[in-house]
Amino acid sequence: MEHSINYAKTQSARFEAELSTLLSIPSVSTDEANTADVQHCADWLREHLLSIGMESVQVIPTPGHPLVYAEHRSPNPDAPTILFYGHYDVQPVDPIDLWTTPPFSSTVRDGKVYARGATDDKGQVFVHIKAIESMLRHSPLPINIKLLIEGEEEIGSPNLGPFVEQRAQQLQCHAVVVSDTAMFAPGQPSLVVGLRGLAYVQIDVVGPNRDLHSGAYGGPVVNPLNALCDIIASMKDRGTGKIVIEGFYDSVRETTTQEKAEFDALGYQDSRLLADVQTNALGGENDRSTLEKLWSRPTLDVNGIGGGYQAPGAKTVLPSKAMAKVSMRLVPDQKSADVVELLKRHVARVTPPGVTVTVTDLHGANPVLVSREGKAMNAAAQALQETFEVPCVYQREGGSIPVVEMFSRILGVPTVLMGFGLSTENLHSPNEHFDLGNFHKGIEAAIRFYHHVAE
Amino acid sequence: MEHSINYAKTQSARFEAELSTLLSIPSVSTDEANTADVQHCADWLREHLLSIGMESVQVIPTPGHPLVYAEHRSPNPDAPTILFYGHYDVQPVDPIDLWTTPPFSSTVRDGKVYARGATDDKGQVFVHIKAIESMLRHSPLPINIKLLIEGEEEIGSPNLGPFVEQRAQQLQCHAVVVSDTAMFAPGQPSLVVGLRGLAYVQIDVVGPNRDLHSGAYGGPVVNPLNALCDIIASMKDRGTGKIVIEGFYDSVRETTTQEKAEFDALGYQDSRLLADVQTNALGGENDRSTLEKLWSRPTLDVNGIGGGYQAPGAKTVLPSKAMAKVSMRLVPDQKSADVVELLKRHVARVTPPGVTVTVTDLHGANPVLVSREGKAMNAAAQALQETFEVPCVYQREGGSIPVVEMFSRILGVPTVLMGFGLSTENLHSPNEHFDLGNFHKGIEAAIRFYHHVAE
Repeated sequence: MEHSINYAKTQSARFEAELSTLLSIPSVSTDEANTADVQHCADWLREHLLSIGMESVQVIPTPGHPLVYAEHRSPNPDAPTILFYGHYDVQPVDPIDLWTTPPFSSTVRDGKVYARGATDDKGQVFVHIKAIESMLRHSPLPINIKLLIEGEEEIGSPNLGPFVEQRAQQLQCHAVVVSDTAMFAPGQPSLVVGLRGLAYVQIDVVGPNRDLHSGAYGGPVVNPLNALCDIIASMKDRGTGKIVIEGFYDSVRETTTQEKAEFDALGYQDSRLLADVQTNALGGENDRSTLEKLWSRPTLDVNGIGGGYQAPGAKTVLPSKAMAKVSMRLVPDQKSADVVELLKRHVARVTPPGVTVTVTDLHGANPVLVSREGKAMNAAAQALQETFEVPCVYQREGGSIPVVEMFSRILGVPTVLMGFGLSTENLHSPNEHFDLGNFHKGIEAAIRFYHHVAE
Repeated sequence: MEHSINYAKTQSARFEAELSTLLSIPSVSTDEANTADVQHCADWLREHLLSIGMESVQVIPTPGHPLVYAEHRSPNPDAPTILFYGHYDVQPVDPIDLWTTPPFSSTVRDGKVYARGATDDKGQVFVHIKAIESMLRHSPLPINIKLLIEGEEEIGSPNLGPFVEQRAQQLQCHAVVVSDTAMFAPGQPSLVVGLRGLAYVQIDVVGPNRDLHSGAYGGPVVNPLNALCDIIASMKDRGTGKIVIEGFYDSVRETTTQEKAEFDALGYQDSRLLADVQTNALGGENDRSTLEKLWSRPTLDVNGIGGGYQAPGAKTVLPSKAMAKVSMRLVPDQKSADVVELLKRHVARVTPPGVTVTVTDLHGANPVLVSREGKAMNAAAQALQETFEVPCVYQREGGSIPVVEMFSRILGVPTVLMGFGLSTENLHSPNEHFDLGNFHKGIEAAIRFYHHVAE
């Protein structure tokens, strides 16, 4: 194990250069214009995995973007099997004008590599690829390793479920490991033991059959933009900050007293969040702590809204249409499909006469809790403590990783969520980056994990 | 007079061809990219006015777009002086993909000419230019005519007021005539005796210092899009349809019993409006008739809204910023500047902690009522009845024409609002058009008006 760790340290410059190459491929899964780039990224990974000595390396086509799969057996017949899951596709880059350096020309500043996908998820995927390379060079693999790297995570992994179901036999393992989350704080590693779910809808409002002159028609004609604002505003109570869609909280499992105590024990300061986002106050439910609001309580956010005249200046139009994208983060035991149904009923109830509203379900994932017990989790905790020289903390995560619930349901195995990112690394935003110190520490922690899980 | 009218009829094809040329110039005042086109349009008008025999023809520069001015004296020393006001600038064309034929390649279909500016206002301006040409060819001018055609009406006429004030002496007249309104219905001409005012603001909301991941930050971070929806929704009562900005209705002069009776006597059917806009119901204040809601009651409409991710698919972003353009049509005795102040105070009261909101005043005009008495109005009523063979009706207009109040205040004269457009001609929308039958009838009515006002 120590040989592999030392090897990785001597190769750190090369590893960073290779990561830069991976980051330069604009594998934006949501944009049809980048379909060839996404394919190219899968092909690049295949070549790279072959070059480090992986076996059974395949780029597997799907109705959408391809999956990359690879294996390597351990010489030890009793070795456990670990499945690493990650994704090589990335978020869109807009707004492009806010990037300091181009999103697909990775640039290193202050010990961080800046590029779209740096932390979500290519940098963290590469942590494991380099850890495995290092082990293949300098020790027998302690575990049987299976790599599954998909190209559609940012668009809801539409083809992953069917693939995992069909190949459940081939993907059999003792545990899954994923690095697509953030540490609790710089220098403070964590294992994620809970993920929020997601329900994402688009609300389309149509009023008059064309854009109208707001003087000639304003008054009796119902304005779809006003109606949309009313519909959205009706979903939350401004006083309490709570979601007032009927039935929304019915399935929510209340945060336990113990959980609240654990959250408090983490010593999280609101001032940290305020300094991070630079607002003058925080909001949300008025009777909950910040960590509860991030981890164990559901949310409702408008992700995008548009309609009418948006360019500079004035145009006195009463527009024909309006659109909003609204998503909710869910907690156990909410179910994504049920929540969408509740929202649809609410919208139908509050839609005024004079407009027609359509709600389209875009994207979903159920919330999940992960046990902190078991061989894999213990191996991860040990690896993190040895690498970062502090005990890891057990935290929940505000975001959603649908595959965790999928692996549990289809393969019957737990997922270790051992992340090396940081919440300030601008994932899904301009100037996304990845701390290179954490990149290298991650490689060490991964090597240690793969060894400890086999002990 | 009859000679001029007959002359115009013999020239109808040429008049239409010339109008097409005028319509082909993309004189979009709000777009810097069209600055040269706007200038070109002014120059074209100057050339054209010179060619028909007008005198003192000038293109007058302003800090913005130029004004076109021309005069012609009557040989009769007792002739009254009439000032014609119109505008040669046009609205922007978006959404361009909804135009059946290009907005600046005028196309005739079913007896209507389709182009941006066809009805608002170039077609109607050309009615008067062709009427004057016809009179110059075949009779001594019965009136002294002054033409003032500006290039900034669609952007709030920022340079017109100072011009009129400085040149008040030169612009002296007995009445102003404007053709920039609609007839009450096809075949039913009208004189507009009331115009709504306008207050137009932009509301900008800023939350976090950058776009955030809605999983990692959703819950405690106040979302500017949700806040914007709340702010807008708070301005009206969903139950009554009334604006609930404090003080908003204080200066509103209640529709008189006589006015309500006159509105009812017009026989306006809601079914006509529903068929026009193709919605399943009308809205607005729940205790008012449709004509009241269009003419004598104020409104509040969102003209544009935008923020976050608006492209297809899903992006789980908690956006940094949101924007809305909101305008209110006003009625006597509301004042545009006062109403903006009331809205600003309301917004300040309802803005939640966690976001910063800025309200910018973009555009304004005070409401105005026009007397139906006087020589000019009587001449117009007579001209319309003779041309259309039905008595004209006196109606109010939902839109705003700020110059009417300006001419009253600075020149001390009334404005005759004698329009030849139709409300269904898609002004401010794609596929704007102008009925060519009304174009030619308008020329006849204008010739008659200019003669009758001198009797």
